[in-house]
Amino acid sequence: MGAGDDFGDAVGKLLHPRSIAILGASDNPVKLSGRPVDYLKRFGYSGRVLPVNPHRSRVQGIPAFRSLDEIDGEIDLALVMLPAEQVVPAVRKCAERGIPAAIIGAAGFAETGAAGAELQRQLTEIAAERGIRLLGPNCLGMINVRNRAVATFTSALDENIALREGPVAFVSQSGAFGSFIFSAAQQEGIGISHYLNTGNEADLSVAEILSGLVEDPQVQVLMAYLEGLEDGEQFLRAARRAHELDKPLLVVKVGRSTAGARAAHSHTASLAGEDTVFDGAVRQHGVVRVGGLEPLLDAAQVFAAQRRPRGRRLTTLSLSGGAGVLMADAAANHRIEIGEWEPEWQQRMASVIPPFGSPRNPIDLTATLISEPDLLRRSLQVAVKHPGTDMIAVLLGNADSGADQLIEIIRQAYESTDRPIVVVWTGGSGRPRQRLRELGIPCFTDPARAAAALGALADFSFRPPLPAAARPDDIEDRVVRAIVCKARSEDKRQLDEYDSTRLIAAYGIPCAGSYPVTTVQDAVEAAAELGGRVAVKLLSDRIGHKTDVGGVRLDLRTPEQVREAAADLLEIAADTGQARPAVLVQRMVTGGAELVAGIKRDPVFGPVVLVGFGGVLVDVLADTRIGVPPFDSDTARRLLLSLRASEVFAGLRGQPALDLDGAADAVMRLSWLAADLADEVEELDVNPLVLGPSGATAVDCLAVLSAGAPEERH
Amino acid sequence: MGAGDDFGDAVGKLLHPRSIAILGASDNPVKLSGRPVDYLKRFGYSGRVLPVNPHRSRVQGIPAFRSLDEIDGEIDLALVMLPAEQVVPAVRKCAERGIPAAIIGAAGFAETGAAGAELQRQLTEIAAERGIRLLGPNCLGMINVRNRAVATFTSALDENIALREGPVAFVSQSGAFGSFIFSAAQQEGIGISHYLNTGNEADLSVAEILSGLVEDPQVQVLMAYLEGLEDGEQFLRAARRAHELDKPLLVVKVGRSTAGARAAHSHTASLAGEDTVFDGAVRQHGVVRVGGLEPLLDAAQVFAAQRRPRGRRLTTLSLSGGAGVLMADAAANHRIEIGEWEPEWQQRMASVIPPFGSPRNPIDLTATLISEPDLLRRSLQVAVKHPGTDMIAVLLGNADSGADQLIEIIRQAYESTDRPIVVVWTGGSGRPRQRLRELGIPCFTDPARAAAALGALADFSFRPPLPAAARPDDIEDRVVRAIVCKARSEDKRQLDEYDSTRLIAAYGIPCAGSYPVTTVQDAVEAAAELGGRVAVKLLSDRIGHKTDVGGVRLDLRTPEQVREAAADLLEIAADTGQARPAVLVQRMVTGGAELVAGIKRDPVFGPVVLVGFGGVLVDVLADTRIGVPPFDSDTARRLLLSLRASEVFAGLRGQPALDLDGAADAVMRLSWLAADLADEVEELDVNPLVLGPSGATAVDCLAVLSAGAPEERH
Repeated sequence: MGAGDDFGDAVGKLLHPRSIAILGASDNPVKLSGRPVDYLKRFGYSGRVLPVNPHRSRVQGIPAFRSLDEIDGEIDLALVMLPAEQVVPAVRKCAERGIPAAIIGAAGFAETGAAGAELQRQLTEIAAERGIRLLGPNCLGMINVRNRAVATFTSALDENIALREGPVAFVSQSGAFGSFIFSAAQQEGIGISHYLNTGNEADLSVAEILSGLVEDPQVQVLMAYLEGLEDGEQFLRAARRAHELDKPLLVVKVGRSTAGARAAHSHTASLAGEDTVFDGAVRQHGVVRVGGLEPLLDAAQVFAAQRRPRGRRLTTLSLSGGAGVLMADAAANHRIEIGEWEPEWQQRMASVIPPFGSPRNPIDLTATLISEPDLLRRSLQVAVKHPGTDMIAVLLGNADSGADQLIEIIRQAYESTDRPIVVVWTGGSGRPRQRLRELGIPCFTDPARAAAALGALADFSFRPPLPAAARPDDIEDRVVRAIVCKARSEDKRQLDEYDSTRLIAAYGIPCAGSYPVTTVQDAVEAAAELGGRVAVKLLSDRIGHKTDVGGVRLDLRTPEQVREAAADLLEIAADTGQARPAVLVQRMVTGGAELVAGIKRDPVFGPVVLVGFGGVLVDVLADTRIGVPPFDSDTARRLLLSLRASEVFAGLRGQPALDLDGAADAVMRLSWLAADLADEVEELDVNPLVLGPSGATAVDCLAVLSAGAPEERH
Repeated sequence: MGAGDDFGDAVGKLLHPRSIAILGASDNPVKLSGRPVDYLKRFGYSGRVLPVNPHRSRVQGIPAFRSLDEIDGEIDLALVMLPAEQVVPAVRKCAERGIPAAIIGAAGFAETGAAGAELQRQLTEIAAERGIRLLGPNCLGMINVRNRAVATFTSALDENIALREGPVAFVSQSGAFGSFIFSAAQQEGIGISHYLNTGNEADLSVAEILSGLVEDPQVQVLMAYLEGLEDGEQFLRAARRAHELDKPLLVVKVGRSTAGARAAHSHTASLAGEDTVFDGAVRQHGVVRVGGLEPLLDAAQVFAAQRRPRGRRLTTLSLSGGAGVLMADAAANHRIEIGEWEPEWQQRMASVIPPFGSPRNPIDLTATLISEPDLLRRSLQVAVKHPGTDMIAVLLGNADSGADQLIEIIRQAYESTDRPIVVVWTGGSGRPRQRLRELGIPCFTDPARAAAALGALADFSFRPPLPAAARPDDIEDRVVRAIVCKARSEDKRQLDEYDSTRLIAAYGIPCAGSYPVTTVQDAVEAAAELGGRVAVKLLSDRIGHKTDVGGVRLDLRTPEQVREAAADLLEIAADTGQARPAVLVQRMVTGGAELVAGIKRDPVFGPVVLVGFGGVLVDVLADTRIGVPPFDSDTARRLLLSLRASEVFAGLRGQPALDLDGAADAVMRLSWLAADLADEVEELDVNPLVLGPSGATAVDCLAVLSAGAPEERH
């Protein structure tokens, strides 16, 4: 990665260049290497265009330079349009010339094999050593729509389109598909501030670009199309900043399915972390993850209008009762509330709509609207005044001939309020939709898509805060260090249940009372000391799954039962060749629900915390959620409540409610363990974490340390 | 409902009229009552246009008639464009004149209150008595695109659009929204044979219209937009016929969510059955249910191409690796398989694409395609020959300037094979999409939408057969009759557990062995007779939920435990005032998984069978499925396997597989009980149905009879 010092500066110049040198600029505007000069001229770039071509004094009518040395004054950005084999010396030259940033278009680097990978490594090295920041290689470049710095050779601009400027910045890891999305966004009337394609990311990653863009005051919405992240923490930094600045970050991340992940790997050769981890990590940071191209553009359209709702309550005004019902269904899928209006407001609405309409919400204006457009004006005037209306959707269709009047009525209503208003205009020629979008009013064809976009708007507007970083002050760090040091000194990676339990207990996670013993007699005494029913478990740092070898005896009530179990297990332990056979005598904890909680390591995000319900819910439904440590107990609570079976916490069939706070506290503490011991703990499972009406109790725990001590591994 | 005799004939004439009388036809083509004549002229209707207007001899330049009596020859269809108060006498006149079908456009019937409802009742009566079949009232009418019988006043045609004919028939319960969908379909290039709006359905229902359309040999795809069904069985008849004729029936049904159901009720005042029942009922009959407007049109586009895949394996050829990955993700959501090609076929593909592309599938042709369109031709030639390719998706974008050549290449490939091929063309002007659709090649903007449409195509192509109606021959009908008669004679609706169990046992469903007893001593003897562990349960036809009153004692091992339990429960029974206190002594059945199975009554579909897993899966996740009885055990098996937690059947954590066949047999038998006793049984619950490695056993059962004997209720 490049030197940190001039990060902001260099990325800032890449994003807002006042002068662009095009290395290898062709005189032919149709050739790839000729397009940038053509685009910069055609779209009216406000800065200096500096073609560099050793063989020409003019390129496409513009004075050209034989080399960089001939250029006077500062060069903010070099666009390197040379073939792969000429790129490394050219970039070195740019760095020597003091150019802060360069875009490398050529393919033929890491994506093509070993020779290309070596070229790419050299680029990374130059960037790191000389501080020049690089976009690409194998990328389509950058467009700053505002100052028309069209530093790209994308074919998205080969038709004579008008660039539409706006608050949405878009970064894509995919070149071609990114350009398709850019083009589709522009076609849908979404105003763009920047479009960048990061290609092979030899230096600048998509996360760093986002970090640069988020600070731009004219950027209000960020869109990212991701195929694979290298550095999750870097991405989350950008996400946190977007969260703080109240700018939505909309993300499409492919490779969700097995087939998709395989294809993504084959396409980008990037290490794909698990999708559930990505999903949990970004949601925790307020990122709006959408499922594909159209949901991305739909959400962008609504966010680009830069209005935020005060709540999740939607009023729909519809020309068709059927459309209103479809909208109500779709809204429910996105937790948008279409509630009945209060009787007095129903009356106010009823007084301005036909008697066979419905004033209840969804409000049915009936097809009378076609012959009487004023009906829309009157009803919108009531709707914008209704205090329980946080957002408004107007559902229309066809009616091309009367469209102008309806659009003018909607425009006036839109300007009379600061609440989000969207229009769904189904069927017809499409011209009314285009016109509304030109007015900055989000417009859709399908009610379902409008509902999804409003859902994204509400989700972001009412996103949870970023986790507070308040480390509990009762963590027994000395105990923690002692357990880890002992294991390291004995060259053990897998801790036995007793040490694993002591580790989480040192973090303040309640554990079932237990004693490790090595004789039958001690086992009986331990059981007596614990009182009540006990379990006896094999204590081994060799056997991960005790139950597989019959190493767990539950629900022992009498000294005889304890004696028998302990004798059995000590024999099994001896049989496995354990130097010092031992068993754990543990108080039985039952009732309530069984949770699982743990730590695992993701190649992209590092250690993450996993929670879920135990039993069939985790085995069959894979109902688990992921958090990125450390986090506070509110975040833990939301994580638990996001489980599909979260109703269990309220208590099933007349059972008392379970102690959600207790569970959240335990999971929060586990997240601190994961963060503190990121270099030490490879994996940790608490299974089950038994949750009752008061308190969560870890009943079994297994920790595995990482492969080597941190210093050895770095 | 109308007389059955001339059903096909009258509906056939409605759908294919050779002459149309327009009652109340206005000379002004802009007025609602003037539009039909205008449309019939403008779109070139091939039959006779017969305006009826007492005040004019010509209407819009066409000879008009003062009354129906003046018209010579047959009239196939009357389009009644009169105000509500004139409709009833006019329709009576039509019936007298022998007109087989009429469309009633006017609003002002059941949707407006009691007076309108009375008018509508009269229409229903005329239809039933005179055999004339009616569409509407409060409907937009009908379009037969083929013979240009545009018998409608919809505003969808007020712009000068060209009607696009094709194999897709569309029926909508919603007028305005139906017209929006019709318009959107036409805009998307979907060729339509018929469009009808059924309005208030005083006579003809959406189901009867579908039953008429499905027999039309030129109709190959049916689309329906539903707000509420009155008669589920009628709808399923149409669905069964579509299934038999291999014609897909695509359905959008609104009112899925609570808010939507409330809105639907307020909009149509129709009794909404539960959505899960509708969903189960239609899926069992091969109906393709889609979630909204765009998925409907997307599926229609693919089905309209009239190609069926031989399997679910998709090959994608993409200009962008990223688009291929997105497609792979989306395909996985719809169980479309994008598998890696065999090595030898990869080699064949590799030989025609660039070295940095991917021949594995998703096949990445790279952006080289833009400069070298022949690459698409070469790769498509390989793909259409590949035997493991059932369907092909070509993913392109932008590239308006080179579009013609690419489209021609796709056209040639399309004609060289009978396999389904779809194109995703993202971004750009939209013209290439339009051109491909004109060629009959389905084309999309978003890979996800193409994947969903292909999923619908595959789901229908490989839909399960309709259930075979083979009633098991071992049902003990005499026992069944005896149980029901006894209860009826005692005026009991709720059967106690013993009689409920005998009822299902008579249908051949295995039940846990049990004895009803009235004394403690008999209970002890019964337990001894059963052997092993037993349960003792309160036997009462008064108390539905025995556990709520502590009426169930489980896992009793000794005579003392049985004695104590029986004494307790007999006392409780006496306390509730039961004339003859009794308890049931039952063999304990444990292990395996707990299912629930039952019968409930739906207002639209009548008795339906419900299955699910017990415990937290049914309580929290509501993971149940619905079947319409009677059905065979293969259908029961699919129902069980469609449960989200169906992996449980394979056996969890090394447990043996459960007897899915046994469970399916029990559920099939329950479906026969539901069908046979449709008039007698209101509700029946088997909970739990314990499923082990060999056999399912009903452990508790509760049946409730319907409110009165069938003859009293009819």
